[in-house]
Amino acid sequence: MTMADIPIITTVADLRVLRHQYARRNESVGFIPTMGYLHEGHLSLINQSLLSNDHTIVSIFVNPSQFAPGEDLDTYPRDLDHDVKVITEFVAAKFQGSSDKKVDAIFHPTVLQMYPSGFSMERSQQRGAFVEVLGVSEPLEGKTRPSFFRGVSTVVAKLLNATNPTVAYFGQKDIQQTVVLKTMVRDLLMDIELEIVPTVRNSSGLALSSRNAYLSPEILSQVTCIFRSMNTAYGKYSKSGVRDVSDLTETVSAEIRSTNANFKVDYISFNDPETLDYLTTIDPKKGAILSLAVYVPNSTETNETKTTRLIDNMIFNPVA
Amino acid sequence: MTMADIPIITTVADLRVLRHQYARRNESVGFIPTMGYLHEGHLSLINQSLLSNDHTIVSIFVNPSQFAPGEDLDTYPRDLDHDVKVITEFVAAKFQGSSDKKVDAIFHPTVLQMYPSGFSMERSQQRGAFVEVLGVSEPLEGKTRPSFFRGVSTVVAKLLNATNPTVAYFGQKDIQQTVVLKTMVRDLLMDIELEIVPTVRNSSGLALSSRNAYLSPEILSQVTCIFRSMNTAYGKYSKSGVRDVSDLTETVSAEIRSTNANFKVDYISFNDPETLDYLTTIDPKKGAILSLAVYVPNSTETNETKTTRLIDNMIFNPVA
Repeated sequence: MTMADIPIITTVADLRVLRHQYARRNESVGFIPTMGYLHEGHLSLINQSLLSNDHTIVSIFVNPSQFAPGEDLDTYPRDLDHDVKVITEFVAAKFQGSSDKKVDAIFHPTVLQMYPSGFSMERSQQRGAFVEVLGVSEPLEGKTRPSFFRGVSTVVAKLLNATNPTVAYFGQKDIQQTVVLKTMVRDLLMDIELEIVPTVRNSSGLALSSRNAYLSPEILSQVTCIFRSMNTAYGKYSKSGVRDVSDLTETVSAEIRSTNANFKVDYISFNDPETLDYLTTIDPKKGAILSLAVYVPNSTETNETKTTRLIDNMIFNPVA
Repeated sequence: MTMADIPIITTVADLRVLRHQYARRNESVGFIPTMGYLHEGHLSLINQSLLSNDHTIVSIFVNPSQFAPGEDLDTYPRDLDHDVKVITEFVAAKFQGSSDKKVDAIFHPTVLQMYPSGFSMERSQQRGAFVEVLGVSEPLEGKTRPSFFRGVSTVVAKLLNATNPTVAYFGQKDIQQTVVLKTMVRDLLMDIELEIVPTVRNSSGLALSSRNAYLSPEILSQVTCIFRSMNTAYGKYSKSGVRDVSDLTETVSAEIRSTNANFKVDYISFNDPETLDYLTTIDPKKGAILSLAVYVPNSTETNETKTTRLIDNMIFNPVA
């Protein structure tokens, strides 16, 4: 077997065989659930798992239940060979010579493996078990995509049960997802630790995203204002004791607007870190999550009509 | 420790400590989830578990989410001492002298342990994770109690995750519950076996139920017609090749009516064993579930006004 060979497991039954082997030897398993088309964000999760566990399993499954009818389920990029290559090259470059640092398996199931009752995009036609996380699924991104988090919760519950990892890794970039899934794991009494890995940023602080590829060099340099604006607000909160959300929101908004008047804020929001309730004042004993979405033009050309929606967030830790 | 001492575990954390001990030794665990007030039906489940597993855990938890507002959540009988005594006496009588046959623990959690996001009877106020099993939760008992199976699925998912049994035991008496939970375990890819234990009946075939205590001796003797009528229909299906559901339904109905004209059939229904879809013809390759509910007067006295609702069911196995 060459270094390039990562076993591809396609059935839950085969995954369990592997998992039971590890369990009998009391070995820990890190798990990274993905929809494939892996980029540096995923690699930072894989890296964390490799550093902390005896074994690492990555799943690649484009989950139909988190897409709404009319969304891009059919055109979502799928390229297993590319993903295997990305993982293999990353592990070789990062852990060269250390033969025990490897991704032990890629779990790449069919829709029917994951949805034994079958799956329909039409909600009234759906059959079988679904998991909903009431409350935290509803604000922010849940407002515009009402069944998105139901799909995410359902598929992650299935993947966690099938893989039974010691630790599962998620990126802070999708912060509402991390809150929804932490609530799910806590409420369903799952015996699994979730680890949230900080957002990967470039040297200017821009959060990595495949959508950054749409942006011209000037815009790419300008959108670093997003991270800077959140840092400015964080400084006001942690050093100057500002607690008022409209004050902090204006700080973020002003810095973005002053960079480029064509940057259009979709939302800037401060929410309770556990319940995601919208805040008007930050309780310094609890802290807050600042999250935002901004539409930016793809270039600075005066006739540019295309825009890209960027999201980012920052955790305002308790300071009291 | 005397034989009467069954450890009572009240937190998920303590349950996990015990469970991890067993896991490290690769020992099997049988689990019987109950709402307490144990009777012979529960004891038959405990008996099965004791015969087949290294360890047996019983949970006693009156689950609020399966009650509708206005139902008997507050008055539901709770008597932990009674339950411990019932288990202890049963095990002593059944397995006297065999010291390894014992219930290892009773898991008796608080509502907050089971619902870490808190629990509200008001659906719009509910927060946190809930499990729904679409399709099979909807017909039969689900028609009259629309959120009952959502509550059952949710609490059983939690209990299975907290206990992580090798096998969990459920009674066939609540047959729709067994179909809903089998679908849930399959769909959520839980690595747990569900075993369905046949309904416990008296020597005349009457299914044991605490509600039988409401019935006078004459009625008690007459209601044995329920089991007989199902057997008659099963004979027509398996021996005479009858597949027509209205024919089989009339067989059951006629035998019940002819026994006592005051027995009022609530429903007699034949459903697909997997999907619980209502059938008009039985496919002998798939079989069917016959289930019924009948209101019977509590006595034969002419001025009797009180009635009791009895339920029962029979699995019509595939015969082709």
